[in-house]
Amino acid sequence: MDSTTDTDKHWRERLYVMIFQTDTVAGRRFDSILLLIILASLVIVILDSIDEVHQNYANVLAYIEWGFTLIFAIEYGLRLYCSPKPLRYAFSFYGLVDLLAIVPGILALYYSDAQYLLIIRVIRMLRIFRVLKLSPYLKQAHYLLDALRGSKQKILVFLLSVCTLVTVFGTLMYVVEGPEHGFTSIPKGIYWAIVTLTTVGYGDIVPKTVIGQIISSMVMITGYSIIAVPTGIFTAELANALRGEQLKHDCPVCRKDNHEHGAAFCSRCGNALFPKVVQGN
Amino acid sequence: MDSTTDTDKHWRERLYVMIFQTDTVAGRRFDSILLLIILASLVIVILDSIDEVHQNYANVLAYIEWGFTLIFAIEYGLRLYCSPKPLRYAFSFYGLVDLLAIVPGILALYYSDAQYLLIIRVIRMLRIFRVLKLSPYLKQAHYLLDALRGSKQKILVFLLSVCTLVTVFGTLMYVVEGPEHGFTSIPKGIYWAIVTLTTVGYGDIVPKTVIGQIISSMVMITGYSIIAVPTGIFTAELANALRGEQLKHDCPVCRKDNHEHGAAFCSRCGNALFPKVVQGN
Amino acid sequence: MDSTTDTDKHWRERLYVMIFQTDTVAGRRFDSILLLIILASLVIVILDSIDEVHQNYANVLAYIEWGFTLIFAIEYGLRLYCSPKPLRYAFSFYGLVDLLAIVPGILALYYSDAQYLLIIRVIRMLRIFRVLKLSPYLKQAHYLLDALRGSKQKILVFLLSVCTLVTVFGTLMYVVEGPEHGFTSIPKGIYWAIVTLTTVGYGDIVPKTVIGQIISSMVMITGYSIIAVPTGIFTAELANALRGEQLKHDCPVCRKDNHEHGAAFCSRCGNALFPKVVQGN
Amino acid sequence: MDSTTDTDKHWRERLYVMIFQTDTVAGRRFDSILLLIILASLVIVILDSIDEVHQNYANVLAYIEWGFTLIFAIEYGLRLYCSPKPLRYAFSFYGLVDLLAIVPGILALYYSDAQYLLIIRVIRMLRIFRVLKLSPYLKQAHYLLDALRGSKQKILVFLLSVCTLVTVFGTLMYVVEGPEHGFTSIPKGIYWAIVTLTTVGYGDIVPKTVIGQIISSMVMITGYSIIAVPTGIFTAELANALRGEQLKHDCPVCRKDNHEHGAAFCSRCGNALFPKVVQGN
Repeated sequence: MDSTTDTDKHWRERLYVMIFQTDTVAGRRFDSILLLIILASLVIVILDSIDEVHQNYANVLAYIEWGFTLIFAIEYGLRLYCSPKPLRYAFSFYGLVDLLAIVPGILALYYSDAQYLLIIRVIRMLRIFRVLKLSPYLKQAHYLLDALRGSKQKILVFLLSVCTLVTVFGTLMYVVEGPEHGFTSIPKGIYWAIVTLTTVGYGDIVPKTVIGQIISSMVMITGYSIIAVPTGIFTAELANALRGEQLKHDCPVCRKDNHEHGAAFCSRCGNALFPKVVQGN
Repeated sequence: MDSTTDTDKHWRERLYVMIFQTDTVAGRRFDSILLLIILASLVIVILDSIDEVHQNYANVLAYIEWGFTLIFAIEYGLRLYCSPKPLRYAFSFYGLVDLLAIVPGILALYYSDAQYLLIIRVIRMLRIFRVLKLSPYLKQAHYLLDALRGSKQKILVFLLSVCTLVTVFGTLMYVVEGPEHGFTSIPKGIYWAIVTLTTVGYGDIVPKTVIGQIISSMVMITGYSIIAVPTGIFTAELANALRGEQLKHDCPVCRKDNHEHGAAFCSRCGNALFPKVVQGN
Repeated sequence: MDSTTDTDKHWRERLYVMIFQTDTVAGRRFDSILLLIILASLVIVILDSIDEVHQNYANVLAYIEWGFTLIFAIEYGLRLYCSPKPLRYAFSFYGLVDLLAIVPGILALYYSDAQYLLIIRVIRMLRIFRVLKLSPYLKQAHYLLDALRGSKQKILVFLLSVCTLVTVFGTLMYVVEGPEHGFTSIPKGIYWAIVTLTTVGYGDIVPKTVIGQIISSMVMITGYSIIAVPTGIFTAELANALRGEQLKHDCPVCRKDNHEHGAAFCSRCGNALFPKVVQGN
Repeated sequence: MDSTTDTDKHWRERLYVMIFQTDTVAGRRFDSILLLIILASLVIVILDSIDEVHQNYANVLAYIEWGFTLIFAIEYGLRLYCSPKPLRYAFSFYGLVDLLAIVPGILALYYSDAQYLLIIRVIRMLRIFRVLKLSPYLKQAHYLLDALRGSKQKILVFLLSVCTLVTVFGTLMYVVEGPEHGFTSIPKGIYWAIVTLTTVGYGDIVPKTVIGQIISSMVMITGYSIIAVPTGIFTAELANALRGEQLKHDCPVCRKDNHEHGAAFCSRCGNALFPKVVQGN
């Protein structure tokens, strides 16, 4: 009986490595196959939403969908089984997403509308970053996130200004154009202001009066110009992020505060950046 | 009576610190609550503009609005009372905005349309920057404003060019397409040119003739390309503001005090900027 | 008689300085007033194009327009009179524009449509740069033009690629969607491709078939992404133009090739940038 | 016979140089003329697609088209004839494109719709880069490609994020708005999300419900903001490619060969990079 438990433990460990880790060949193959299945299940959901397909193949697609739900259920069970701390996994972000990927499939047996919740499986696609973990892609995503984090505050100031602008202009247009030209309420006016400021311009609500068109022109030129702000912020931050895993350290002599990565001496005055260490040598 | 005046003066001073300053806990809490009330009053105005809400809750909302007007009126009175120079406050930018935030509420008693003027209260939201004063946000807004100020003249040149472009193209389209295709006047043509150049593209006025479509294509490609100009201006300025560099150091020989970022020697007299170090070698 | 000629010559010279130059107070005031008159004449043309205004004030506006044409004609005569080389002025760029600003006004007496040609007067507004000559604005326009000139070749490569793209996609959509969905010819398809690629999106011609919508999606994402190209080109060039009226000269020792404006010694190695000169000293 | 073969060989070689190379005057002239013919043939295809032109000049255009096809067929024959390795050319990229430029013209004799395939000749326009080979344009295109290659991974991460976003938002809108407002299927919803996110905004499908408009607003602001991402990536890379800097110089002591732009001392060993100079002082 001992050996059985041992084998069992061994199995669970191998399974854990395969399912949860991506360092081994098996682990990466597992994640790749999983991603393909998730993708396939998404395609089925999308296809099923098309009327013509639904009318002809509703049953086939439903069976396939159940199959996918079964596969994901088994996968979820295996994850719980082989995880050393099942509860911790169950309440982790990925654990909840994995559960959410099964529930709508079961609900869909009773409520047919529930199947669209299956699109939540798209979140599981985030695992793609785990597959790409060892590739240089993560580093690139890291740069992008670094740049975003660095510009967080500036972007917040920018978004606050945009919110104020669309509120003021939306109200103004509601008062100027009025319900007879489609501006039926202030929220509608704000919606119009967003459509216009972002240069999307659906054309479902357009100014008809002269004053309205003058205000619109101002909103458009504003929107056209301030697109420069997020771009400028992000570019400047990204350039910073790309330039520098630079060493931040004041040179004790010339106060130069940015140095090459790995620099031991200041490139401007030639003095040791960490003099005590050099003395100790 | 003396002590009463003293207490009164003491009270006014405490009130002044609380209402006008944001350095104390009480002051910041006051401004935070004020912001929330302003926000709530804006939400009420916005809700009241929705037809269904207005039909069912017009009275309730009107009472709430009067309440807010009362609160703001009391606040305005307190500001006048505790300010050391009441007149100076009354005619300052914030003082006028604070007054404007009350007037429409009173006017709305007589003219129901006046209530939309209440949206002017959104300007009071500017106080949010006073609350954020001590946070790093102001520094970020400072960077943005620095970059904007630095690019002011370039942006003016750019806007002048845009105005010339839309005037010429608007007139051209008015002559080419004419009133039967929606281009009823030159201002309408200019409005169309702005809608097109900014890539908003409502589609309420579109070229129908072949020549009109060729001209439109030129306007679109122009608009698509010159969006690079404000972005480029702003990015270059922001990058400058962020880098903010140049070495500030008096050359020991010729007293030149601004040097290139990585300068080891003065570019005017050729002397080492950090002579002791070089000697020490 | 001699003194008369002398006075006359003196007058012509004073007039020349006032009309053609902007260095004196009188000269600048003359150009400012001229700009205002041009602007007023443009406003009249624009107002006259509005149907309601035209029906009520056609006569008044026509008289005013004749007045402006008279003023410009007198100005043109004075320029010819006081110019030392009248013919050279008459055939210069500004001379032709000045003439073109009068002709449509005279033509309008016979053909009423000719009056829209008056918009050509907007070109005269270019004189605004002469008025701003002594201001820092010209330097800023100079930076922008420098950046544009520097990126000319890259922008040409970019525009060629865009032309190829819209031709291919326009033809593709003509074949896929066909005349029944508004794509009546290949040029129409190209027009649609430009409207879509530049993210204008009028909505006058939209894809109806599934394949058409897939192709559109590709065009849109392409257009959304390649907007980065002109922006990137321009920003990089502008940053270069802003950084540098840097001295381009290879340091004879360390080969550093960019130096501060006015540098006599290399800031990296401290050697004289122009050794012979220093030896000669 | 020998001399004939010799002459023949000589002829083939001269032809090869003229047709395949662009270093000689004749070679460049050949390519220029070829480009003009391709352009003319494209114009004919485009003109023929216009209904009015087709009805009146169908025959003339067909004859001209056959003429162009004949010219291209002869050119293809000559290329095969003078190429030292005809098969290698036939299966090269350019060889296949050259063949594809003829086939539709022949097919068009039997199926009239095949003529639109002639637009494939636009690919032959790629030869334009061969004509421009010796000009500075290639260097500029090189910079652009360098910047694109450098940002390839970041752009992939970005496109993946965009795909996820449009899938999620498209499904959400399908569920929220439903078929009665034009969102007839999830793919349609995704198409709408792309139209909105890229700020194209046709207006053929627009949100009608309040929740739908709130979601749209979020999509628009997202699209308006993340346009900064490709721009930022590309600008940062292009700025890098343009700067292209870093000092290439072997440190005389530790042989470190890459140094900071303005380095006077090696940042690893602290020794002067240009020792003679310092000694000379």
